[in-house]
Amino acid sequence: MSANRLEAFSDGVLAVAITLLVLDIRVPPIGSPGSLGHELARQWPIYAAYVTSFLTIGIIWINHHAMTNRLEQADHSILVLNLFLLLSIGVLPFATSLMSAYLKHPQGQHLAAAIYSGAFLVMSLMFSALNRQILIKRPHLLKVQLSSGLRRRILARSLVGLVPYVIATALAALSAYLTLAICALVALFYALPMASRDETEVG
Amino acid sequence: MSANRLEAFSDGVLAVAITLLVLDIRVPPIGSPGSLGHELARQWPIYAAYVTSFLTIGIIWINHHAMTNRLEQADHSILVLNLFLLLSIGVLPFATSLMSAYLKHPQGQHLAAAIYSGAFLVMSLMFSALNRQILIKRPHLLKVQLSSGLRRRILARSLVGLVPYVIATALAALSAYLTLAICALVALFYALPMASRDETEVG
Amino acid sequence: MSANRLEAFSDGVLAVAITLLVLDIRVPPIGSPGSLGHELARQWPIYAAYVTSFLTIGIIWINHHAMTNRLEQADHSILVLNLFLLLSIGVLPFATSLMSAYLKHPQGQHLAAAIYSGAFLVMSLMFSALNRQILIKRPHLLKVQLSSGLRRRILARSLVGLVPYVIATALAALSAYLTLAICALVALFYALPMASRDETEVG
Amino acid sequence: MSANRLEAFSDGVLAVAITLLVLDIRVPPIGSPGSLGHELARQWPIYAAYVTSFLTIGIIWINHHAMTNRLEQADHSILVLNLFLLLSIGVLPFATSLMSAYLKHPQGQHLAAAIYSGAFLVMSLMFSALNRQILIKRPHLLKVQLSSGLRRRILARSLVGLVPYVIATALAALSAYLTLAICALVALFYALPMASRDETEVG
Repeated sequence: MSANRLEAFSDGVLAVAITLLVLDIRVPPIGSPGSLGHELARQWPIYAAYVTSFLTIGIIWINHHAMTNRLEQADHSILVLNLFLLLSIGVLPFATSLMSAYLKHPQGQHLAAAIYSGAFLVMSLMFSALNRQILIKRPHLLKVQLSSGLRRRILARSLVGLVPYVIATALAALSAYLTLAICALVALFYALPMASRDETEVG
Repeated sequence: MSANRLEAFSDGVLAVAITLLVLDIRVPPIGSPGSLGHELARQWPIYAAYVTSFLTIGIIWINHHAMTNRLEQADHSILVLNLFLLLSIGVLPFATSLMSAYLKHPQGQHLAAAIYSGAFLVMSLMFSALNRQILIKRPHLLKVQLSSGLRRRILARSLVGLVPYVIATALAALSAYLTLAICALVALFYALPMASRDETEVG
Repeated sequence: MSANRLEAFSDGVLAVAITLLVLDIRVPPIGSPGSLGHELARQWPIYAAYVTSFLTIGIIWINHHAMTNRLEQADHSILVLNLFLLLSIGVLPFATSLMSAYLKHPQGQHLAAAIYSGAFLVMSLMFSALNRQILIKRPHLLKVQLSSGLRRRILARSLVGLVPYVIATALAALSAYLTLAICALVALFYALPMASRDETEVG
Repeated sequence: MSANRLEAFSDGVLAVAITLLVLDIRVPPIGSPGSLGHELARQWPIYAAYVTSFLTIGIIWINHHAMTNRLEQADHSILVLNLFLLLSIGVLPFATSLMSAYLKHPQGQHLAAAIYSGAFLVMSLMFSALNRQILIKRPHLLKVQLSSGLRRRILARSLVGLVPYVIATALAALSAYLTLAICALVALFYALPMASRDETEVG
């Protein structure tokens, strides 16, 4: 399969997933006890989780393009690993809903936060697994041949992206707010347009 | 990244966002007190907000194309600014829901209207910021080199598009209906097919 | 704007609208009085309206392609008329929901049926309006120049497609079931693969 | 119609359907009797049905590409059969919801399971019907002419894919869990990246 159609389908799934996130932002029901302003302010975890997830999916899209753009052709193993990556992205609207619903609840907040950053961690693992398949196992499918050293450096960079999500997931037991803050900072770090950075690889 | 894939992903997000708006139009529950005709007529704010948002997103799509069509390549700064523009478009289904739910309620209508036109204002600001990045900061990425004067005129035109949304947001404190009317008129103004107008730039 | 991007965005909206229809098919709540089989059978109007709307949108997609495929370029008037066509398609999931919810209710069934086939009628009108703009007003944007007679015949064929929807809408006052049956028959008529028919134009 | 646009629209519908599946994964309501962990664990049928449906749609996408990639042009019969295939894919989010809602309920579980694997069976039948139309009835539309024997072997392979779904549907009367397990195993079988397999055809 040409890499173009792999990109087109992945773009579609990413575009739908990123846009479905908005269904999580609820309109406060008419007749809520507080004023509309108060009710909207109360649901700030929804906005925080929304923006964090939106930017994270957006960055994955940028990196997904950088990855598939190197490909001339995709074989069955790449298609299937890409499908597992899309699966891990497809559940993000659920993980985001869970996080925003439980962030302020003493009972479930730790588990919800662990699942939230855990979902980003799994997505990053899938991304790295696909990257590894392309760069290490199927280098002959690349458009331009890259040296073995360069291919390993690109893969190592995508593995570095796992570290903050491991930390965020571990710290969920301590504080759900901290977990959300780390995930948000990771998204902002990669999203901030730095003039000096030509290409970013986050997994 | 080639500008083509930037367009494809943006088209996807815009197409999903514009189509999701319909989820806001509710079927009156069986057993409502009034007749079906009465119940459908009662929810006219939903239709007004729906059509306004649909046309506004549609016009943004037309203008987004005109903007990215000038691009040969997109660098990281353009990808990230585009992502923030998509974020501001992604929340429009929520702002539209809020507006249509609260338009007729004396309590929340002013805030809901301010958020509604405020969301269009933020979207226009993001659009202008992206336009500025392309035209002023990254002119070397354009397909065809444009004179500095022409580039500034195109940008100025997109900034003019901000004005009605500033007015509509300010007037929300006075009347939510007025705010909606201004937003609807802006959408209709740009949508009306004028034979004499070849290209329109609204931000 | 090149006709390609007009197609890509329209394809996106049509693909989302056609797939969103499924949200209307409800899983009977656990603990419903009847057996699952009985509950599923009871909601047959949902399936009838779903299949009718799905096929109708699918046929519009086929015809939309036949129409835009003739275009080399799209000007502002074509973009805006296409946007109004997409608007009329975007409300179909709502009209479908309304039809399937009220088909069996003596109170609202006539109005719901009139709105359902009326929505198809409006969509067909928008389709014909766009077709007319392309064929009669902007023939110089066509890829291949067609004779005036041929252009008028193509347009006439798309106008013929309006007739059954006019009849179906008028008959809604008599019987909602009849209206649904006509709309379903129109969809099936155009969908049935006839070996002898090379190209079909339904509006 | 060129096969490209057939692919683009089909990709769109598949991408929306596969991503909509996530709407079925519910966030346990605040104030549920058990802990969040317990509540999340209780809804394991949702995850099982989600992953099974996601992978199945993903594999259909891979095979759909392999099928349409052979096409140079699509005629009306191919477009309409493809539309029926998309219709059968479009209902999968409903079938998945039904399966995950009723899997643990003694009353409805057999029917729900039969509908679930029955939906995959219908989808496979539509896939084979489209494949047959392309390979046997319209071989002149292929990009590269294939021998009659090879075309029949490709079709036979896609028919073999029907067998497990026939068995799973028949066994639903015995055990809904068994039906789900068979569907899940089929998806995993085709998804497992086998280095030795270059191209897989599952219908």
